[in-house]
This record gives sequence, C-alpha cells and structure tokens, in this order.
Amino acid sequence: MRKVLVAGIGSTPFGRHGDIAIQSLAIRAADAAIREAGIDRREIGALYLGNFVSGPLTGQEVLAGLVADGLGLAQIPCTKVEGACASGGIAFRHAYLAIASGLCDVALAVGVEKMTHADTATTTAALNCAMDNRSDGVSGLTFPGLFGLAWQVHAERYGTRREQVSAVVTKNKANGLLNPLAQMGATLDNDQIVQSALICDPLRLYDCCPTSDGASALLLVAADRRPDLAAMPVEVLAAAQTRGSARIAGHPDLCTFEATVAAAQAAYAQAGITAQDVDVVELHDCFSIAEIIDGEDLGLMPRGHGAAYAAEGRTRVGGDVPINPSGGLLSKGHPVGATGISQIYETVLQLRGQHPNQVRDAAIGLTHNLGGTGVACSVNILKRLDA
Amino acid sequence: MRKVLVAGIGSTPFGRHGDIAIQSLAIRAADAAIREAGIDRREIGALYLGNFVSGPLTGQEVLAGLVADGLGLAQIPCTKVEGACASGGIAFRHAYLAIASGLCDVALAVGVEKMTHADTATTTAALNCAMDNRSDGVSGLTFPGLFGLAWQVHAERYGTRREQVSAVVTKNKANGLLNPLAQMGATLDNDQIVQSALICDPLRLYDCCPTSDGASALLLVAADRRPDLAAMPVEVLAAAQTRGSARIAGHPDLCTFEATVAAAQAAYAQAGITAQDVDVVELHDCFSIAEIIDGEDLGLMPRGHGAAYAAEGRTRVGGDVPINPSGGLLSKGHPVGATGISQIYETVLQLRGQHPNQVRDAAIGLTHNLGGTGVACSVNILKRLDA
Repeated sequence: MRKVLVAGIGSTPFGRHGDIAIQSLAIRAADAAIREAGIDRREIGALYLGNFVSGPLTGQEVLAGLVADGLGLAQIPCTKVEGACASGGIAFRHAYLAIASGLCDVALAVGVEKMTHADTATTTAALNCAMDNRSDGVSGLTFPGLFGLAWQVHAERYGTRREQVSAVVTKNKANGLLNPLAQMGATLDNDQIVQSALICDPLRLYDCCPTSDGASALLLVAADRRPDLAAMPVEVLAAAQTRGSARIAGHPDLCTFEATVAAAQAAYAQAGITAQDVDVVELHDCFSIAEIIDGEDLGLMPRGHGAAYAAEGRTRVGGDVPINPSGGLLSKGHPVGATGISQIYETVLQLRGQHPNQVRDAAIGLTHNLGGTGVACSVNILKRLDA
Repeated sequence: MRKVLVAGIGSTPFGRHGDIAIQSLAIRAADAAIREAGIDRREIGALYLGNFVSGPLTGQEVLAGLVADGLGLAQIPCTKVEGACASGGIAFRHAYLAIASGLCDVALAVGVEKMTHADTATTTAALNCAMDNRSDGVSGLTFPGLFGLAWQVHAERYGTRREQVSAVVTKNKANGLLNPLAQMGATLDNDQIVQSALICDPLRLYDCCPTSDGASALLLVAADRRPDLAAMPVEVLAAAQTRGSARIAGHPDLCTFEATVAAAQAAYAQAGITAQDVDVVELHDCFSIAEIIDGEDLGLMPRGHGAAYAAEGRTRVGGDVPINPSGGLLSKGHPVGATGISQIYETVLQLRGQHPNQVRDAAIGLTHNLGGTGVACSVNILKRLDA
C-alpha cells in the first residue's frame, strides 16, 4: 500500500444553513479543500461522499455525482457511502484506499448532511433509520434512549456520577467557544447542565449534540505524487472500518461498542502504535456518556475510568489525554454524514500546529466515528510529517 | 491487481415480496451465493451493498451492517453504496476492488430494493431523488419524461420508428418468459404494445420496466486463494465506474449518455477487448428506448443503428449481438439497488452454460448499469475461465 497524505481541508461552519441546498454545502467545503491543496481538480481520480439521511430529509440522492458536477471534476467514479453516523469516516477510508491501492493519485472525501429544516418528529424518524427497525425501532427506542441506558449501566457498574459526566459537557462546550466552525460553544457548570431539560433519564439537553447542517472535505494525495503542495500535508497512518450489531440485543454489554474496540485494534496495528502514543483525539461524543465509553473502548484509559479522567481534567487540552479540543459533536454539532470528515479536518489542523485550541506538540492524532447502535465504526490515525 | 473470480451467485425472484423485510430479501440472496460457492462465511473480508431508496421507502438504512449481522459475518467493513439505479454495479466494483487490491481474499456484493408496498406518488418522488431536484426535479420532469424526450430526439435524428422500438419490448418480454426469476414475461406484438396505456409520449406502459422488490448477491474470491470452489467460477476482466451530469441541461445530446461511453471505453481497455468480442450483454433497459441508446453507447452497433438491430432480430438469442436474454429490466423488473448485481448473476449463468435462455458458446459477457439521468454508470466484463 502506498503512503497517503491529507493535502487540503475544507469545511463549512456547522449549524443552520437555511436555504443553501445540501449539494451546495458539500461543494463549498470540497472546493475549499481543493484550493487549499493547490492541486488542479482535473487530477482528482475518485470522489467518496458520506451522507446518511439526505433521501428522507431533503429528497436528494446521487449527491456524489451532483457534487462532482458542481466542482467540474472529470468522469471519475463518484460514490456515496452510508453507515449511519459513521458515513463520513467510511468515505475517508475509501478515498484513502483508492490512493493506497494505486487506483489513482488524488482523491476527494466529502461528508455532508442537512437536517435543521425538518421538524423533530421527522428528524427522529430519519435518525432511527440507523436502527434495526424490526427490533429496536418498533420497541419505541430512540438514540437518546440507547445512550441513557448505557449511562445507567455504566453508573451501576463503575459508580459513574452525574457531575463526572457533566465534566465532559463543560469541557466540550468550553472547547467549542474557541472553534469558529462550532455550532454552539458555551460556559456551563454542573448546575446548569442538571437544570436543562430532561431528554431521557439521566440524559439532559446539554448532554446531547444538537441537530445540524454542514459539510467537510479532505483532499488526499499519494505521497509519491509530487512535492509541490500549497498547504502542510499530514500522513494517514491507518484507516480502519468495522461493523457491530444494529440491535441492542446483539450487544452483550451496553457499556462497550465492539465495533469501536475492533476498529481501534485494527488501526493501532496498521499504524504500528499503541493508544499511549496518541497525542490528540477527536471521538464520537453524540452524547456526553458516549465520550466516556468511547475513550475506554479506544484504550485511552483503563475500563471504567473514563468518568474519572474527565472529572480530573485529564481529557482537557493540557491534560495527558486531550479529547475533542474542537468541542466535539456536543459543541460543533452533528451533521451526520459530515462528522467523520470534520473530525479529520480538526485533527489535521492540530498536526499542522494551526488549531485554535492547539494541543502542544501534537504529532499523532486519532479520530473515531461511530454509526447507529454501533453497527459501523471508523477509526483513523494521522501523523505530522516531520514527527 | 489480482485476478478475481465470481465464485457464487444468489437471487430472489423479482416481483412482489409483500411482508418480507428488505434486509431479509438481501440475506436470502447473499446466503444462497455463499452456499453455492461452498466457502466458509468467516472468510468473507468485506461486504458492499447497493441500495437506492430504502431510507424514503422503508425507513431502514445501515443495510450493509444489518445484512452482515443476519449472515453471521465477522466484524468486517460493511458499506452501503448509492449511485441511483447504478448502485448495484457500484457495489460489485467495490467488492471486486477489495480483492483485486489485496485487502481481502473473499468479498460479498449484494443489491436490494423494496418498492411495491409504496403508492405510485411516493415511489415516483423517491425515484426522483436520482435527479438534480433544483433543476430537473422542480421542472416536473420524471424518468419516463426523460426517456420519452430521448426517444423523440432519436426518432427525429435517425428515423427510428415505433415498431422498431416495439421489437425490443417483444424480445425482452419473450425472454422473460424463460427466466424463472423474472417478474413479468409476456408474448406481446406491436399492436398490443401500442394499445397499452400512454405513460409519456411516445412511451407506452409496456415500454417501461415495472416496480419491483428483490435482491441479488455475488460471492467474489481471489483466483490465487485456493481451487476448491463448489460452483463453476467466472473471471472478472473489468469493472469500470464513471459519472455524468445529473441534469438534462448538462447533457449536450439526449441520444447518448456520456457516462456509458466513458465506462465502456474504460472497461474494454481494462479487459483488453473490443465490443466485437462480447458474446452476451445485459444492459440497462429501464425503458425500451434505453436499450437502443445503451447499445449504441456501448459500441455494440454503429450510432443510430440500434433500432434497426432490434427490428432485424440481431439482438435476440441466436443473433450476432444478443442483448438481455434474461428479459432485462423490462421483464425481470427493476428493484433498483439489485439490478446491477442481477445483471452479473444472469451473465455468470450464461458463461457457465447454465442459463435458461442460453447464448451458445458464450465466453465473454458484458453488463451495463446506468443511474439517474446518466449521473453514474457501471460497466463490467466477465469471462468463462476456460475461454
């Protein structure tokens, strides 16, 4: 496999994008990534686009082809990939593989979603497309319900306390204040979090990521292509993708996602590193408790210690395991198909030393993108070129 | 790139599948393909699933993971791909690439759609997700409208006559009578076709493929893996994927799909053959006129001669350019995401010499799968192993 670089990045702000069509958001982000890399767009040999619910929510599919058309690309293979909330990570992996396997020298990975125009019932029904609707869906379960259950099991097994979980929210909302692309940073203490609306016990409003519109994009190139890149490139050390069960009953343990554990193992093996070598992490905090479970699944701390790490400030910028300096999904928002690409966007900025909430001397970054009830997972590892 | 074989095939009948869930259809087809190949399912290293409108029509996404779960596969990468009506062909290409590039030795390609439960307005709205809805969609255009326009241009430019186009319908409906998986074969002459309901001038009801449920699957293996396969394998010579415009105004000519022309050129080059070397073709006859345009785009006959070839019987089994001996989309039906996989299923049977409507001594087969307004195209070439 050939060495692959991220040579250009682009992203819209996440939030409400009113009248802008979904393809226009994606084209805007992709155009920025191409321009930043300083590469002629006719060199692009493949496009992968991550999207989850554009069909139900906007009535627009064939987004990969539409975006390529808008960008003026050649008659290249353009493919939409879907794996619920992991769609963006899956798009990145396929663009990476297109180059690593020698199919082409330049590839574009785009993620996009448009959700804020729909009412809550419509959005909830669309998001529930990520469950097995013959089992979990018909039971009345929603995703806040799933993560509320996971929290209760974590609390009972490990003694995880409300104020420890709140430390995740406080940190990520504060980090979001520093991120110009984030939908909603905030200064929040435990009292304010506990007083926010009850969504699904014990989850409160501030424990949940917002509904968002947005797009992010990455231009990837083969390292052996040529040296004249306009922006500082970052190396892809690993791109792993796994599956788990789409049913709660298919998970032997609600406090772990087997797809994350398997993807992390595969990614560490491909990169030739361990969790201890990672300097900065962007992981899938769709809910506050998810950051704790994901961190444990990724081996960033011992099992059952995720809550304590958050409460002790070890996951802040400046701590020994910085998690979601971007603000994570809780602050950035979660335009589903864009999230996995956005995580890499943020990590590239960290490895270039250009992030507005910079982790000092960050040389190795990890991103983690989880779909549905753990039905799909993407874990990627990136490295500063001079490290 | 490593040599790749189709080692097992499976398909449900196409038609109405009432209460069977969409994932169950896919699991049924995939299970048959795995069993036919006689391969331990734990060897499968990747799954690609082609589907177009399961989100809007069934409220179920994450089909790739759901199907893997139902099949009892390992924690492998499972990816849904979408490119409108070309989704199945795109799934096949990615399963092929996973093996050809050395990522894994065994991969599964599945295509599925469930449509017949929805009313016509809902289905039409879902199918229109394949257009650029800011231009063609809002104009009131539907896919019968697009192909009706293409027919009118073809008639004006080449003198194509109604009874020549009817020859496509008569042939494909007759072929469908021989195919046990087809939704609706029939014995139809020009008078009966002309007397069927007007859909969009000049398209009549029998010029249009029916709405369908169904699934098809292919198990692919690396040729260097091992020789103990239970069924006769067929070699993949080429798998090409291209894009075109998603807008009518983006096509300089309504009588040709540039995505097909580009995919055919790429596939012939990869296979090292020309159109004249192809013994049997399964192409995307979503409408009768499409078979004529597609045949010309694939170089199977000179430009403007597609209608004459049909009328002269040259595209029948026994003719010099046999097209759609399976009955094509017109007879088999068109469960959108399954169609591209089904075309390869039929072609594998031809190259094994096991097809119920066998083309004598068929050694090389071509499949052609076209999405939307030509926004995506997949052309694949397969070869009998001993040829």
